[in-house]
Amino acid sequence: MQVGKWSEVEAKGVSEPGASGVTIRVLMGDNVSAPTFVMRHFEVAPGGGTPYHSHAWEHEVYVLSGKGKVRRKGGETDLEAGSFVYVAPEEEHNFVNIGTAPFVFLCAIPTKKSYVR
Amino acid sequence: MQVGKWSEVEAKGVSEPGASGVTIRVLMGDNVSAPTFVMRHFEVAPGGGTPYHSHAWEHEVYVLSGKGKVRRKGGETDLEAGSFVYVAPEEEHNFVNIGTAPFVFLCAIPTKKSYVR
Repeated sequence: MQVGKWSEVEAKGVSEPGASGVTIRVLMGDNVSAPTFVMRHFEVAPGGGTPYHSHAWEHEVYVLSGKGKVRRKGGETDLEAGSFVYVAPEEEHNFVNIGTAPFVFLCAIPTKKSYVR
Repeated sequence: MQVGKWSEVEAKGVSEPGASGVTIRVLMGDNVSAPTFVMRHFEVAPGGGTPYHSHAWEHEVYVLSGKGKVRRKGGETDLEAGSFVYVAPEEEHNFVNIGTAPFVFLCAIPTKKSYVR
């Protein structure tokens, strides 16, 4: 068992092209030898956003605080604390802060070794 | 893509022996054909707790609100909003509300089809 607080985990800037003002903390992944999936904590600064992209794995997102939106091909939906978002494999998406405080969410993905389709 | 709020998802009582005052909402699972893992939302009433047990799959837990503790063989740790807990496969554990408000957390598990060891 491993117990911690999100704020104790090292924060890293996301430098992927298209990312702006995004910080990631990997809460449970390689550090706990997670077999199947990885839970990450994201903070997006006001005016910032994650890259608009797609990939072969899914996301399961839960919003902790702030105001944001998720964008997809042909639409977007506002998000707030308590919102959840399932992004299917290969679906285009990004997350944008539309408020004045940090937009904070959990985003879980499969581990590489569990990712077999 | 599927977007929702936790409060819009049907709440079900947990009737497993040893559970007391526990409500579950499956936010992302069969409803979104989740390939690899399932995100569930739990509320534990004051004085309540989840069963003390073990099983062959892992948990990844993130506490949203309230005061609780996680118990394991030989120890326990207090939890509050922002705490996370990794419970390894086969590790004994339960979650108990030690406060006066609901103890609320996310708990993700692998899907049955991804659960191959």
